[in-house]
Amino acid sequence: MLDVAAKAAKAIPFDTDHLDRLLADAGIDVLIVTSKHNIQYLFGGYRFFFFDYMDAIGVSRYLPILVYRRGKPEDASYIGYRMEAFEQELGRFWTPTVQTSTSTSMDAAQLAVEHIKRLGKGVRRIGVEVSFMPSDAAAVLQDGLEGYTFVDAQFPLERLRARKTPHELKLLRESSDHVVAAMLETFGRCAPGMSKSEIVESLRRNEVNRGLTFEYCLITAGTSQNRAPSDQRVKAGDIISIDSGGNYHGYIGDLCRMGILGEPDAELEDLLGFIEEVQQLARKPIKSGTRGGEIFTVAEARIDHSPHKPYIEFLAHGMGLVSHEAPRLTSTGPVPYNAYDAERPLEAGMVVSIETTMKHPTRGFIKLEDTVAVTDRGYEGFGDRGRGWNRAGGGA
Amino acid sequence: MLDVAAKAAKAIPFDTDHLDRLLADAGIDVLIVTSKHNIQYLFGGYRFFFFDYMDAIGVSRYLPILVYRRGKPEDASYIGYRMEAFEQELGRFWTPTVQTSTSTSMDAAQLAVEHIKRLGKGVRRIGVEVSFMPSDAAAVLQDGLEGYTFVDAQFPLERLRARKTPHELKLLRESSDHVVAAMLETFGRCAPGMSKSEIVESLRRNEVNRGLTFEYCLITAGTSQNRAPSDQRVKAGDIISIDSGGNYHGYIGDLCRMGILGEPDAELEDLLGFIEEVQQLARKPIKSGTRGGEIFTVAEARIDHSPHKPYIEFLAHGMGLVSHEAPRLTSTGPVPYNAYDAERPLEAGMVVSIETTMKHPTRGFIKLEDTVAVTDRGYEGFGDRGRGWNRAGGGA
Repeated sequence: MLDVAAKAAKAIPFDTDHLDRLLADAGIDVLIVTSKHNIQYLFGGYRFFFFDYMDAIGVSRYLPILVYRRGKPEDASYIGYRMEAFEQELGRFWTPTVQTSTSTSMDAAQLAVEHIKRLGKGVRRIGVEVSFMPSDAAAVLQDGLEGYTFVDAQFPLERLRARKTPHELKLLRESSDHVVAAMLETFGRCAPGMSKSEIVESLRRNEVNRGLTFEYCLITAGTSQNRAPSDQRVKAGDIISIDSGGNYHGYIGDLCRMGILGEPDAELEDLLGFIEEVQQLARKPIKSGTRGGEIFTVAEARIDHSPHKPYIEFLAHGMGLVSHEAPRLTSTGPVPYNAYDAERPLEAGMVVSIETTMKHPTRGFIKLEDTVAVTDRGYEGFGDRGRGWNRAGGGA
Repeated sequence: MLDVAAKAAKAIPFDTDHLDRLLADAGIDVLIVTSKHNIQYLFGGYRFFFFDYMDAIGVSRYLPILVYRRGKPEDASYIGYRMEAFEQELGRFWTPTVQTSTSTSMDAAQLAVEHIKRLGKGVRRIGVEVSFMPSDAAAVLQDGLEGYTFVDAQFPLERLRARKTPHELKLLRESSDHVVAAMLETFGRCAPGMSKSEIVESLRRNEVNRGLTFEYCLITAGTSQNRAPSDQRVKAGDIISIDSGGNYHGYIGDLCRMGILGEPDAELEDLLGFIEEVQQLARKPIKSGTRGGEIFTVAEARIDHSPHKPYIEFLAHGMGLVSHEAPRLTSTGPVPYNAYDAERPLEAGMVVSIETTMKHPTRGFIKLEDTVAVTDRGYEGFGDRGRGWNRAGGGA
């Protein structure tokens, strides 16, 4: 029979031992979580509906704060916006204390200061999400917590999320399926004369009507390499790339598929065929235990022996609640720690986005992007449909 | 005939003289703009599509930066994410220099440091949006710009946006119209047994299918006062409040309408009738030159003489790109400077959200929220339809 303390511990929706180990490795005594994605993770899917899209209100902003003391989830506290009282009433928060009284980022930071002061001795190093901690809130923390040391906690939090649970995998699978289905419907309704912005608007609605939150669409048409939605109008014969991210309960589907207003000629079939070959090669070595960088090794070996090499880019990156996250497989790309996982083994539950991009000098922008989950025995592709030339204008 | 410099100046989509005056009042020599809403404003509607919804990428985030030197728009520079090169190609930025090479918030801040250092003497006080400046970027600025003083620029930027242009008013009108139309369609499709979350999902799709970006929906049903979407199922006879914000090209429609699964009895008709009376009284004094606080004066006078006073809340606040912004009419509410405009005259082009909320002890949550634009001669209500008891389940 569970006692009350054990019951409370059971309700925590993430692996506290794992988080405690990561925090110990980073020398963090107390964690202050402030990003929407990590708040969502640590509350098992929670995202305050009112500030899902926006942050700004008045001359301040929404700033949710979870204070978590390493090894002591019983000392954790959630500090929310005043309207999150409705969510508290619905039992959304596992933390023993919850305060839903804030109106500004500085209010929230002040409550965090007071909570941390009450924790007493043994707390010296505080981990914060430095990119998701507004400077006004940071100033309140620094003033209120003199003598404490602040360090960046974004990396350990990313590691915590690296292996997805079966429930997270289910959401990512559904997200990918819905994104691809929305793309195929969008291609089906394309017609000469539509602008790229109109095509994106059609995709947005097709995603939302499948339950997704639309995030973005990169789009090219014809021989242009410009991927921004614009007034450019598609015309008969144009190829169209659609690379879109949408999320399903926070989990991102991020794929790229190709369409054409007409019939592809032999060269176009060959070019997309080559990309498909690289994509299939790249996923083949994936399984738990494979060195992460192997995905690049096999893809690049094929590309190196191809005449297309000068205008091909290959990329693989983890994804989940954030569109680029662990595992980090390459030093190419936008963020620090990028090659962290290149020499480490892939683990079951990791999810990798694999993308082969051809910026063809005369035929245009041709790309496939796929989502592949690592399993114990191999891999599973999510949203694997529609990989060839999708005929535009053929109906949904 | 315009010379080149004059042509460049003409392309700036906001009133630089007005901004310069506001910055002079605040003692700001250089402005660093980093919020999505102010970037949108200062670039005439621009919002980078890729990070419209999300901010996070890798273990950092998107951070757009406009550096603007008071009185010298020719020294302004835009610092964007690397994929904003596509937007630059499309001519979206009026600043004489544009750099689209950043991947992280710290990269962006470093480029801002370098730009400001190049501006030379006469720059001492730097205005930043303290709630929209991540702490890692703030540290880069402080390290790189020793000897400069940093001050909060959120308030002058809000003042800059207070009077809407005809184009902004058009977008706010359309946004309000679409939000109300989506609500009426949603009520029409309500049926006993639906959950509040399902009703919100229906509203979300109805807003998106009208071209809006859905932001949020507060919803109550029956006699509950809980406004969060949840599994609560509506049943015959329930009243339903739907208070939703959606934006049209960034401009928010934020209104509240009432529905009922059945027919309202005399008491419900009276209660909503009273709210409507307060709402109509409150907008009556509105025109250019009226003291801002007059809206409260007339509404509160009526409420003070009513038996409903104990459970009525009245609120009026400016709105536009942000759901609560100038004019600031009351000290009640979430943010600093709240009563700033209470003793000042309303100005043509200001847009005010007016809300009367009844938390009735036995009948439930009953509310109307309207959007009213200040004109030279009076006011204009946006989205004024559907103000009575909308019969749910009656079809779209």
